Amino acid sequence: MTEFSPAERDAMDRALDLAARGLGSTSPNPSVGAVILAADGTVAGEGRTAPAGGPHAEVAALTAAGDRARGGTAVVTLEPCDHTGRTGPCTQALIAAGVTRVVYAVADPNPLAAGGADTLRGAGVDIARGLGEQRAGHLSRYWRTAVRRGHPYVIWKYAATLDGRSAAADGTSKWITSERARADVHALRGEMDAIIAGIGTVLADDPALTVRVPGLHRAPLRVVVDAAGRTPPGARVLDDAAPTWIATAAEVGAGADGRVDLEKLLAALYTRGVRAALIEGGPTLAGAFLAAGLVDEVVGYVAPKLLGEGLAASGPAGVTTISAAIDLELTDVTRMGPDLRITAVPRRRS
Amino acid sequence: MTEFSPAERDAMDRALDLAARGLGSTSPNPSVGAVILAADGTVAGEGRTAPAGGPHAEVAALTAAGDRARGGTAVVTLEPCDHTGRTGPCTQALIAAGVTRVVYAVADPNPLAAGGADTLRGAGVDIARGLGEQRAGHLSRYWRTAVRRGHPYVIWKYAATLDGRSAAADGTSKWITSERARADVHALRGEMDAIIAGIGTVLADDPALTVRVPGLHRAPLRVVVDAAGRTPPGARVLDDAAPTWIATAAEVGAGADGRVDLEKLLAALYTRGVRAALIEGGPTLAGAFLAAGLVDEVVGYVAPKLLGEGLAASGPAGVTTISAAIDLELTDVTRMGPDLRITAVPRRRS
Ligand SMILES: NC(=O)c1ccc[n+]([C@@H]2O[C@H](COP(=O)([O-])OP(=O)(O)OC[C@H]3O[C@@H](n4cnc5c(N)ncnc54)[C@H](OP(=O)(O)O)[C@@H]3O)[C@@H](O)[C@H]2O)c1
Ligand SMILES: NC(=O)c1ccc[n+]([C@@H]2O[C@H](COP(=O)([O-])OP(=O)(O)OC[C@H]3O[C@@H](n4cnc5c(N)ncnc54)[C@H](OP(=O)(O)O)[C@@H]3O)[C@@H](O)[C@H]2O)c1
Repeated sequence: MTEFSPAERDAMDRALDLAARGLGSTSPNPSVGAVILAADGTVAGEGRTAPAGGPHAEVAALTAAGDRARGGTAVVTLEPCDHTGRTGPCTQALIAAGVTRVVYAVADPNPLAAGGADTLRGAGVDIARGLGEQRAGHLSRYWRTAVRRGHPYVIWKYAATLDGRSAAADGTSKWITSERARADVHALRGEMDAIIAGIGTVLADDPALTVRVPGLHRAPLRVVVDAAGRTPPGARVLDDAAPTWIATAAEVGAGADGRVDLEKLLAALYTRGVRAALIEGGPTLAGAFLAAGLVDEVVGYVAPKLLGEGLAASGPAGVTTISAAIDLELTDVTRMGPDLRITAVPRRRS
Repeated sequence: MTEFSPAERDAMDRALDLAARGLGSTSPNPSVGAVILAADGTVAGEGRTAPAGGPHAEVAALTAAGDRARGGTAVVTLEPCDHTGRTGPCTQALIAAGVTRVVYAVADPNPLAAGGADTLRGAGVDIARGLGEQRAGHLSRYWRTAVRRGHPYVIWKYAATLDGRSAAADGTSKWITSERARADVHALRGEMDAIIAGIGTVLADDPALTVRVPGLHRAPLRVVVDAAGRTPPGARVLDDAAPTWIATAAEVGAGADGRVDLEKLLAALYTRGVRAALIEGGPTLAGAFLAAGLVDEVVGYVAPKLLGEGLAASGPAGVTTISAAIDLELTDVTRMGPDLRITAVPRRRS
């Protein structure tokens, strides 16, 4: 087991905080945090990934540290990149700054950028991996999954009553969940690069699909899955609060049913730099994503209410018998004011 | 604030454990636990309520303590009763045994039996109330609510997927939840005096509605809500594993819709000694109980699975718009193996 100093542990905690703050603003780059410790173990500088095209976390931290980086340690949440993108490889910047040790949490799965650790080792830099691995893995799961696979990490979010209803019999759904839960939804949206809704929801509810968190400025791409291009010109998703893409079958490609091909939709989003996407419904689109096995995470906001009838949270997903149910694993259950947030991921097939 | 000795605190913990063990076996009496401390503070005897007609907890504990009760303290989970039922008032037994102090957790809401504390005080016994109040209140909530109101405490239990389905589109529902969750259902049934199902469930599933917990022998009354008496002669609920009541409209009384009047059903069950009843479904009956405001507690076993279609856990409950949703408050959320048990109670109107 590699040993880490108390200063390195503190630095990783700080670097992880920095990385968390950047979630949702750095795509197509991962959100990384970095802290430079001077040779005497004191903090010399810190940084996090700037919005796309800006400097990487390591470069920002090295800039802040200046000469104090020489003989020091870089503590980074992700393996430093080794490829010349818009900003030049971080490995070279670290070597040039005279850093003699690099501590990082998780490896870079990106085949273009990986190999950073080897390059550093070859230059005589001491390398230690695994500090903060769990939290870093969680924080970077959207990005790492997306890059490994070439299409975005997809979260299906829904709000429902205890008996699984997302709207009452008369169609009303404001509000099923509490203000506290709704604030959490906005925070979740703030981590996303795209927010996806079906044309059914746009026609029924005219949602804004924007992020409303005081002090947080994020405008993820709004995506309407709309085979025939029926989004009305005056729809709120077309205002200038955020960019919007009306994804039609003509542009994306159609499935056998004439509807938008969801795999192609995700591939197109990846090309546009989207690494994390949130499906906000409605039930028809959610069921289609679930049926296609394209959901990586389910986040349910469940209010302790009962409706007895009304719209179900998820529509048909191609499952007709109990043994074929889509099997998930709970990863988190948290009270949100009076409500419950239930997070689950598809169970890995053995 | 009354002060309690460490010995009294330990004794109350033990008395509460004894009371918990008796749940489901003592109706129409409450399940009570009692510990007698001798004058020197050591445990002289303990007891719990015997099945109906047998001795009360205090009498059992006094019998075990014998002469050592003289000058001692009785620690009881419920205020000792003051009325001459089948066993004579506990207050007189305590006075006769020479107990000089009585510590109890919660008051007796039964107008027939209440006043025990006053009687004891009048006889010169020192009285202290409130030790263990929270746990005792929770343990005795079925019984206290039922007695105060004259009809049983009603729990609606359901098993469903994350998206609120209790069966798949083809009707299959074995098994939605894990073995761990199903074992918990049997433990819950073991606390009940009656288990209620609709004729729809009996015809569809032919359930046994029995308690299957190793080492626990309980046979709550099985009740089929069956307006026209359609329960087939060979139905499993008619076997001799437990008593069964086919509650027809002719016997109980009918509502405006010709179905069994649920208020009258509950009143009849109370008369039969039922203090706690579990509604096991299906959705039609559950919806009817919810619509009538007759559910005191909801216990949902939620499996992290998705079905997308199939039978909803609850059928129509007279709610058509979101502002009229039945409002609950979460009281407990517990992992049950891979599943979640969510407990909630109707929110008190302000
Ligand atoms: N409480 C909540 O959490 C919540 C959230 C969202 C919505 N809702 C409710 O949901 C209702 C709308 O439900 P909905 O099911 O009609 O709307 P939806 O799922 O938002 O939209 C469905 C439509 O998306 C289009 N689509 C395009 N490609 C598709 C594909 N591959 N698979 C599936 N659909 C595709 C289809 O129309 P085309 O064929 O024309 O493209 C389809 O009819 C509203 O009442 C709204 O209030 C509730
Ligand atoms: N997974 C689970 O947790 C679970 C649990 C239970 C059931 N289920 C499923 O539920 C399905 C059966 O559902 P269901 O809704 O038909 O059955 P149900 O609710 O068990 O029975 C409904 C019937 O009860 C009778 N009833 C009498 N008085 C009533 C009243 N006041 N209000 C309402 N009903 C009254 C009615 O028939 P009469 O008018 O003839 O009396 C009514 O049709 C089955 O498929 C079963 O598998 C699932």
